Amino acid sequence: MTEQTWSQPITKIEPNKVAVRGYPIDQLMGRVPFAHVVYLVLKGELPNEAHGRVMDAILVSSVDHGATPPSALAARTVASGGAPLTTGIAAGIMTINRHHGGAIEGCMQVLLEAVALKREKASGPTKPGQDALTAARELVAGYRAGKKRIPGYGHRVHTDDPRTRKLFAIGEQEGVAGEYVEMGGAIRQAMHETLGKDLPMNVDGAIAAVLCEMDFPPEMGNGLFAIARTVGLTAHVFDEITRQRPMRRISPTEQTYDGPPERSL
Amino acid sequence: MTEQTWSQPITKIEPNKVAVRGYPIDQLMGRVPFAHVVYLVLKGELPNEAHGRVMDAILVSSVDHGATPPSALAARTVASGGAPLTTGIAAGIMTINRHHGGAIEGCMQVLLEAVALKREKASGPTKPGQDALTAARELVAGYRAGKKRIPGYGHRVHTDDPRTRKLFAIGEQEGVAGEYVEMGGAIRQAMHETLGKDLPMNVDGAIAAVLCEMDFPPEMGNGLFAIARTVGLTAHVFDEITRQRPMRRISPTEQTYDGPPERSL
Amino acid sequence: MTEQTWSQPITKIEPNKVAVRGYPIDQLMGRVPFAHVVYLVLKGELPNEAHGRVMDAILVSSVDHGATPPSALAARTVASGGAPLTTGIAAGIMTINRHHGGAIEGCMQVLLEAVALKREKASGPTKPGQDALTAARELVAGYRAGKKRIPGYGHRVHTDDPRTRKLFAIGEQEGVAGEYVEMGGAIRQAMHETLGKDLPMNVDGAIAAVLCEMDFPPEMGNGLFAIARTVGLTAHVFDEITRQRPMRRISPTEQTYDGPPERSL
Amino acid sequence: MTEQTWSQPITKIEPNKVAVRGYPIDQLMGRVPFAHVVYLVLKGELPNEAHGRVMDAILVSSVDHGATPPSALAARTVASGGAPLTTGIAAGIMTINRHHGGAIEGCMQVLLEAVALKREKASGPTKPGQDALTAARELVAGYRAGKKRIPGYGHRVHTDDPRTRKLFAIGEQEGVAGEYVEMGGAIRQAMHETLGKDLPMNVDGAIAAVLCEMDFPPEMGNGLFAIARTVGLTAHVFDEITRQRPMRRISPTEQTYDGPPERSL
Repeated sequence: MTEQTWSQPITKIEPNKVAVRGYPIDQLMGRVPFAHVVYLVLKGELPNEAHGRVMDAILVSSVDHGATPPSALAARTVASGGAPLTTGIAAGIMTINRHHGGAIEGCMQVLLEAVALKREKASGPTKPGQDALTAARELVAGYRAGKKRIPGYGHRVHTDDPRTRKLFAIGEQEGVAGEYVEMGGAIRQAMHETLGKDLPMNVDGAIAAVLCEMDFPPEMGNGLFAIARTVGLTAHVFDEITRQRPMRRISPTEQTYDGPPERSL
Repeated sequence: MTEQTWSQPITKIEPNKVAVRGYPIDQLMGRVPFAHVVYLVLKGELPNEAHGRVMDAILVSSVDHGATPPSALAARTVASGGAPLTTGIAAGIMTINRHHGGAIEGCMQVLLEAVALKREKASGPTKPGQDALTAARELVAGYRAGKKRIPGYGHRVHTDDPRTRKLFAIGEQEGVAGEYVEMGGAIRQAMHETLGKDLPMNVDGAIAAVLCEMDFPPEMGNGLFAIARTVGLTAHVFDEITRQRPMRRISPTEQTYDGPPERSL
Repeated sequence: MTEQTWSQPITKIEPNKVAVRGYPIDQLMGRVPFAHVVYLVLKGELPNEAHGRVMDAILVSSVDHGATPPSALAARTVASGGAPLTTGIAAGIMTINRHHGGAIEGCMQVLLEAVALKREKASGPTKPGQDALTAARELVAGYRAGKKRIPGYGHRVHTDDPRTRKLFAIGEQEGVAGEYVEMGGAIRQAMHETLGKDLPMNVDGAIAAVLCEMDFPPEMGNGLFAIARTVGLTAHVFDEITRQRPMRRISPTEQTYDGPPERSL
Repeated sequence: MTEQTWSQPITKIEPNKVAVRGYPIDQLMGRVPFAHVVYLVLKGELPNEAHGRVMDAILVSSVDHGATPPSALAARTVASGGAPLTTGIAAGIMTINRHHGGAIEGCMQVLLEAVALKREKASGPTKPGQDALTAARELVAGYRAGKKRIPGYGHRVHTDDPRTRKLFAIGEQEGVAGEYVEMGGAIRQAMHETLGKDLPMNVDGAIAAVLCEMDFPPEMGNGLFAIARTVGLTAHVFDEITRQRPMRRISPTEQTYDGPPERSL
């Protein structure tokens, strides 16, 4: 049986040449920051400065969240059996799915749906923001009736997540804040009216909103989160292998922080 | 049985506070580039500008190498069975080990060993570079006698790898080029004398040399490679899931590139 | 934060006592065959002799299918990077999903749906098999209209799969062949009438039918397949690590068999 | 670049034919028990009745050990993020390594080393068992001097593990108890003399001893354990997905058993 030729659009390899989405890699090295290269590899085009800064902020926001997320625990647990570093990291990455980081993709889907609804219904002169709120109310009612949760709102630990505030601020500052960021706020308001509870957007929701602004597909949401979180996972698994006893009972709650004390840039 | 308290030095989480190695994450976002945050998370301290640029170049150099490395093939193959994006990415990361990306760790070990040997034997005034070459010859002879390969030299595809040249150039320019980069060259020369073959350092060897200059532990080598390669793997798995037929025979050789044509910054 | 107590119904561990679904493990060892213990662990109860033999046949049927399924290729590819045996096996298991082995779960869902439809509509005296065929035609028409595939029929390689014939024969012989096996045939006939193509049930479909007869939940389908296939994957990864060159290009098609010649029991 | 043909000795696939190590799979189904097929796939030959029963007992002994082994915890943790069943099972399998199940391989290496030492030194008429004890003392002294642990002895929970007793009893009964089982006991005695502590062989050690009797390679040890443990992992992940809340804090210690009460065959 003959092999079927297939093609991929990411990187071209020839002897002594490596071109990522068309750009020679030695041109990118030292001239295009890593976060912008992440954007290039995923989107196929280099970001402008504004998009580059927002992507950089997204990645930094998600590098780590301590030892209690299931990805960190899974990674450490696999390593405690004696697995190599990359096997432990991989276990952490596999944990990123519907319930963990998956809110990014889920929230992007909702935002896209709500903005499409708004555009459909838009007619004549309206008060700024009214179209968004109208569509949001309709969507929230529909989700409520179908008993479907809207991902991207509320958080187990943070009521005023510094990552969310900062990401929206950077988005605002860079002009990466339009229909989708607006809709994120409209959905929050609509849910408040319906549920009587104010659930601010969490960092997954904020990331979802700005990724929609930058025209990324929802199905890439978990991937972006994985790219960022691989960083923290590497540190956690390295710590597990070098500083902790093998086969230990890893309590998800009885753990403390013993790293550098709080400090400022 | 009571839980045993344990501690980790990476990230401190409190309500509305996330501090990575002591730095509030919303201070890092927008002010410290992602590559510098990678350095911070792994090393525990922020890099100076020179180290930051070298780390950035290391990460960019390793984002992807097309569809033929086993990590990309494993990732695509797992995805073709219907696995989610992160499960596919994880399979790619698990492939990074002794033979794939593992040369970084292996070469770091050799460089550390060789430089330690050089320092041991250093005595009185010597010609610049002589101490390094002497130690390199002794180490190479020892490895040859023990039939042990020295990782970080030679490459399947590239005889003059643009990534290697560029990384050494950036290292030179940023002053991140000392005993270890020197020893990398000395080992190349010693192997040339012994084997009659000139095997230039490959990109794994170059990364190993500059990571030694920046005082990273060898055992973190595969982790650095994993962080960078997660980017390419995400794009490859996304391509597999969205553009390719499920359960296809993925030929590692009959593939072409169909992305953006060659272009310059 | 205090730990939340939780419970699991599978195995009870106390000092010097291991009880699997209530049975002391040293009573099971040597008295209950492994395949029956698989049934016990998954179902919660020991099988009667008939169910035990059918479960045993299911597991044997799926131990391996050579080096070309994506699970075997993924496992070998990960191992070729230098990963340990279990990391390679794990990569193979992760590949078992919607498109690979996943037909078991998908087909079980369809059979359950069709039999439920048949029971709903059953009324008065009917010709044997007529109720099943009527429901099958309705289901097939519905799936066709919704452009949904019915898993469990047809095969890439085998037009008369020996595993399918044998499994149905054993099921028949052991009395594990009722409404669901009947429906499997009815759906085949209904599809033949509609598509003009005769697609016999493949081994996934046969396994699905008898698992329904034995009252297993569909969501366990991939798990049963994983348990069986771990056996072949272990052998493939062991072969990759011990007999093949590292980092080799693993062609999914240019491979031959060089094991023991054909022989009979 | 042309594909390189390669070969594998496990299963031959042709249209309508599946032959495992030479035996048509439909001959094996219903006639050769699953545990014997495991032996065949891994060893390349069918077991005789004695070996078949011992292999069956090994597999049953290792199907599960509750929710606290790191493999079960890793599997459940990955599943709690929303990963599919097989991704969770895979995480559990990846955890099987040097410290978890890995004692099988490690202990096999030690037993092979000790028996080789005994055979080397055997000369003239000796008291039964004396040669073994002499070699054991020498090996234990050597390991002690090199600060190397001997795997396969002692256990976190069980001082008189029912699985160990039963496996040795079955081995004895089936005549699968020779030099290696003897050496297992000799090493225990030698360690008792040296350490002042009596560490009975644990189940990993017992499995190691009988696998050596049956001439399996040590490097397959983790694979055998993985094949058996996939069964328990499937049940644990299925339980996690169907009965537990997503993203829950999975305490490794605050868990109880709520399955069927203790009962006898």
